[in-house]
Amino acid sequence: MKKTAILLTILSLSFGCKKPSTSEVKQPQVNKFAIVIHGGAGTILKKNMTPEKEAAYKAKLTEAIKTGYAILKNGGSSLDAVEKTITIMENSPLFNAGKGAVFTNAGTNEMDSSIMTGQDLNAGAVAGVKNIKNPISAARKVMTNSNHVLLSGDGASAFAKEQGLEIVDPSYFYTEKRFKSLQRVKEKEANKTATKTTAFYDADIQNSKFGTVGCVALDKNGNITAGTSTGGMTNKRWNRIGDSPIIGAGTYANNATCGVSSTGWGEYFIRGMVAHDISAQMEYKNVSLKEATQNVIQQKLTKLGGTGGVVALDKNGNMVFEFNTAGMYRASMNDKGVLVVKIYKE
Amino acid sequence: MKKTAILLTILSLSFGCKKPSTSEVKQPQVNKFAIVIHGGAGTILKKNMTPEKEAAYKAKLTEAIKTGYAILKNGGSSLDAVEKTITIMENSPLFNAGKGAVFTNAGTNEMDSSIMTGQDLNAGAVAGVKNIKNPISAARKVMTNSNHVLLSGDGASAFAKEQGLEIVDPSYFYTEKRFKSLQRVKEKEANKTATKTTAFYDADIQNSKFGTVGCVALDKNGNITAGTSTGGMTNKRWNRIGDSPIIGAGTYANNATCGVSSTGWGEYFIRGMVAHDISAQMEYKNVSLKEATQNVIQQKLTKLGGTGGVVALDKNGNMVFEFNTAGMYRASMNDKGVLVVKIYKE
Repeated sequence: MKKTAILLTILSLSFGCKKPSTSEVKQPQVNKFAIVIHGGAGTILKKNMTPEKEAAYKAKLTEAIKTGYAILKNGGSSLDAVEKTITIMENSPLFNAGKGAVFTNAGTNEMDSSIMTGQDLNAGAVAGVKNIKNPISAARKVMTNSNHVLLSGDGASAFAKEQGLEIVDPSYFYTEKRFKSLQRVKEKEANKTATKTTAFYDADIQNSKFGTVGCVALDKNGNITAGTSTGGMTNKRWNRIGDSPIIGAGTYANNATCGVSSTGWGEYFIRGMVAHDISAQMEYKNVSLKEATQNVIQQKLTKLGGTGGVVALDKNGNMVFEFNTAGMYRASMNDKGVLVVKIYKE
Repeated sequence: MKKTAILLTILSLSFGCKKPSTSEVKQPQVNKFAIVIHGGAGTILKKNMTPEKEAAYKAKLTEAIKTGYAILKNGGSSLDAVEKTITIMENSPLFNAGKGAVFTNAGTNEMDSSIMTGQDLNAGAVAGVKNIKNPISAARKVMTNSNHVLLSGDGASAFAKEQGLEIVDPSYFYTEKRFKSLQRVKEKEANKTATKTTAFYDADIQNSKFGTVGCVALDKNGNITAGTSTGGMTNKRWNRIGDSPIIGAGTYANNATCGVSSTGWGEYFIRGMVAHDISAQMEYKNVSLKEATQNVIQQKLTKLGGTGGVVALDKNGNMVFEFNTAGMYRASMNDKGVLVVKIYKE
């Protein structure tokens, strides 16, 4: 009996202690390819919406995601899917990216974008660009055709032009809606109508911080790509750069863990390193994508005082929407072609 | 005996499995306050040095770190210590920051800097600034006197001027050494003298990527601050931004884990999110600062193809130098006032 006791003890020590890590227990491949997108998080309330506006947003999100889906279904790369999908949203005046970008305090548009591929951790980004029609394409060119990760301002435009990308007159990005939005925000901040309390609830002020488009895709080769594009924050000054062109904050992709695209109050996403933090929790704590995004967005970001959300997916094709705002324009498609398009918190 | 066997098994399962985490086992406070600095990592070889140059670097590193040390010893904040220490290195033509910054392809200077405080994860940064005498001070003002984290270019300069910081003529930053360095690098890259092989070993090309100054401090209140400042990469184009103004790449501070300042081939530090990755390993894997920096620099960064290093310290005052290059200008001082100043790998 003594030998049995010793044997049992040894066996317990051997088997009882070692918690199988996620990487050791083979996780099921939920989707062979998948795609998630967002068109911005913020104070999006049904009572402020019209059926027409809702329909317009849903239609554009659908058009964008189906474009990326078709590429993936045909065996195309997640890199192509992300670029093409974001391009559609940049070309639409509905979203704060490309055409429809918000205005700076000076009445100009300064756009930011980044992209990252998960198989090699390669990345590209542009910040504060004023005349590149599709900033996401510029970000891709920086990644593939330069030795750099982040270019800015006039230099980024010069590079984009050299790379054969379409350069437009800055007036191309103008939309009346965004220009009026600038006026309203300026008025409120100037007349101090925006007290601390009202600013918190004021949809204009709040939403001035939000709006961005993003996409994360997983292709049949198991490669994850993430991308983000934005006009930044309404009434921004001093050539402010937000989280969208910052790898690890607005965009991150790593085949071993996940791909993430963020939208929200950019400064908090930088301080919290939101996109990389989600990946790090998966890498070092062996938690699921859902658990990691929930912790980073609902616990850490919220505690820090930040607002916004992410779309994300992992190498097994698990997809996640996570946000702490009233709404986030979002959509997903799995490898069976099941489409989900949503706006409000559910 | 059977009961004993069962009891032993249960006891093994209870006690054998739970590894005490670092946060549960109280770690010793090694230093009540501490400070580490770097003046850049790279191909710094003894055979390329002269005794006079070595002495000059060591003297300036000593002067800088003693300035920060004095502030900490007197109960001052790590934020003040980091800003004042980096200011000394920015004002010296020896380092690639402030005066002595390297030149862009266009023959101009574009500087980047960031700072972060560990008690509140607040951060500030400037990128591509041309006429702010002390970029680290501008980074601090962005953190404390604006709602933003990252400002760039002319806008950042306008903000800095509004904040009362010293604005200089761009010619202030000129040093003959750096200008000649630009010419040499241009020549080599133009004449294709820099083949893939020679570029790897060519000190000019290699070192064109390096040089940056940084400081991490822990004060008597237990607050960690980290800061970084640089002229960027010699011959850079297109308003390229490196890792130095990127929170999570060049700079990171979190009282719960550590403070980090990076120097090296910036693009790799961004892609690898080096500073935040070190903190994440401590936070999620419960490893020591040394283990985390070693893994991130010697394993992950090296594997990615990147070169450079970090200085770091944790809330207990443990200090670390970690780099995968031939040398890194560095210094440390503990709470007993013991000074360490080094250049080469040992």
